[in-house]
Amino acid sequence: MRMMIIGAAGMVGRKLTQRLLAGHADVVTPTELILYDMFDAPAPDTDLPCTILSGNIADKAESEKLAAFHPDVIFHLASIVSGEAEVEFDKGWQINAHGGWQLLEALRAQHDASGGTYRAKVIFTSSIAVFGPPFPDAIDDDFLCAPQTSYGAQKAMVELLLADYSRKGFVDGMSIRLPTVCVRPGKPNLAASSFFSGIIREPLNGVEALLPVSDEVRHWHASPRSAAGFLTHAAGLDFNRLEGRRSLNMPGLSCTVAEQIEALRSLAGEKAVSLIKPQADEHIIKIVAGWPRNFTAARATALGFSSEKSFTDIIKVYLDDDFEGTL
Amino acid sequence: MRMMIIGAAGMVGRKLTQRLLAGHADVVTPTELILYDMFDAPAPDTDLPCTILSGNIADKAESEKLAAFHPDVIFHLASIVSGEAEVEFDKGWQINAHGGWQLLEALRAQHDASGGTYRAKVIFTSSIAVFGPPFPDAIDDDFLCAPQTSYGAQKAMVELLLADYSRKGFVDGMSIRLPTVCVRPGKPNLAASSFFSGIIREPLNGVEALLPVSDEVRHWHASPRSAAGFLTHAAGLDFNRLEGRRSLNMPGLSCTVAEQIEALRSLAGEKAVSLIKPQADEHIIKIVAGWPRNFTAARATALGFSSEKSFTDIIKVYLDDDFEGTL
Repeated sequence: MRMMIIGAAGMVGRKLTQRLLAGHADVVTPTELILYDMFDAPAPDTDLPCTILSGNIADKAESEKLAAFHPDVIFHLASIVSGEAEVEFDKGWQINAHGGWQLLEALRAQHDASGGTYRAKVIFTSSIAVFGPPFPDAIDDDFLCAPQTSYGAQKAMVELLLADYSRKGFVDGMSIRLPTVCVRPGKPNLAASSFFSGIIREPLNGVEALLPVSDEVRHWHASPRSAAGFLTHAAGLDFNRLEGRRSLNMPGLSCTVAEQIEALRSLAGEKAVSLIKPQADEHIIKIVAGWPRNFTAARATALGFSSEKSFTDIIKVYLDDDFEGTL
Repeated sequence: MRMMIIGAAGMVGRKLTQRLLAGHADVVTPTELILYDMFDAPAPDTDLPCTILSGNIADKAESEKLAAFHPDVIFHLASIVSGEAEVEFDKGWQINAHGGWQLLEALRAQHDASGGTYRAKVIFTSSIAVFGPPFPDAIDDDFLCAPQTSYGAQKAMVELLLADYSRKGFVDGMSIRLPTVCVRPGKPNLAASSFFSGIIREPLNGVEALLPVSDEVRHWHASPRSAAGFLTHAAGLDFNRLEGRRSLNMPGLSCTVAEQIEALRSLAGEKAVSLIKPQADEHIIKIVAGWPRNFTAARATALGFSSEKSFTDIIKVYLDDDFEGTL
């Protein structure tokens, strides 16, 4: 099975590449990989044929080039993050929305040129940013999209396109609405959600972390391992089971910042917790106030998607998979 | 107030033009009209300055031309109908979705060029086709969009764009999700919903009408007068009252085809009813099975939008406003 990852150099893209190659029993494994991003993804450690490409997904010719590979499965993860899309209005709509549309158009052209025999399975990473307040205590699978960021609107738009191109049979697609991925390894990024990882990762590495919001803030999390697992699970799923509703809220863990901090204390002690420095940031407080706090994720759970059950488990995944220091 | 109607030659566009000029106390009236469609709209009977233009809204230059008028209010009604958008995939996405996006881009360019002083009020006619089954008995204002037609997906996409361009302050927009407009005057059109009007209009005019679905089918209706009224009410509404959720399900009347027929019988007698000829059409049965049947429309009602309370009232509107024969 020829698999393509668009956005392969990003954190989730690299986790996904590793997971596809790790030989888990529950993962449909590739026979060939095509890794694409705005810069070259690191070459994975594999004997499989692997093509590494880079370019700007907002260019129509790039989408056409990618579709011409006739991947059996395409993971479309590429986007600029929420904070950047909010500041760079044109760039966000061009890359996140128009780029997705062009990719679908290129895949439709390949479908048509093949006489209808080529139909890519397309798995798109959407986000809980498609939702906007006011929220119920737990968002169910019938809740409206009312994004309050350009990033969320762009994700919701590609969801609509992917569903319609799939309904017409040009591709066979599904949108995975990721929880906030936490604990992200590496450095802070421009996403307004970056601190949710920072307040765990930095203290574990002996570094101070700023907490820009109240510790009463409740949010919806899943580990990078779970995020990659959602994608590989989707690759093995018969999308007819989605019954025409092809955008799915993924399972996750709802917890408060205070509960995150308690989990850190239980695993790394008081010294780590003391490195978290509350410093209110009105800009981030305002953005985060518009974010969902909890979901039922009933459909996704029934379809076999799963994630962590406690924030302690989420930190343990970071310690297992990414932590390079010593506690 | 300079008002522009895009899609002015269509049925709702003409009703809207009349209503804007009729001098109702509850209507914000224009001081100038610009009427645009793919062909010239009929010249309205008015002393106001009135510009009549035609062209293809899918052309970028057309959007730029329209935005350059700096209308205070733009009613964007133009689209190809559901049946046509389902058959003509490219045309539907180009006109209904990309056309709307280009219009917003042209308005943003005018906003920017004016130093931020120009901000059009944009009222977009969306549709209950943004929803897809399974449905609750009555769809509330928090129910998800899951369109099962390209037309519905295109409407939902422009809703997302309009909301985000509004949130950023480039325009001040709202999407009006129209019920099926019934009784439409004139001839049947390509919409799969056309028969809902046909089974009333044709018999009133002494002509046979085919009924392609069971008389147990329940659907959601409002008269052309109500549709125009929603639009003029929106023109006078402070959109800050929408609190960031700028797409609104309009009020309507939920009734079965059998109830439609009973209303026809009560106003026009058995002879009219005998002109309705059941003739099952599996294609239309399948499409209609995916349509909503009832709504709460609580937010719209609270914001002062209103419509008919019985199907008899809906037929009476047709008799008052459009019927040219004698009963």
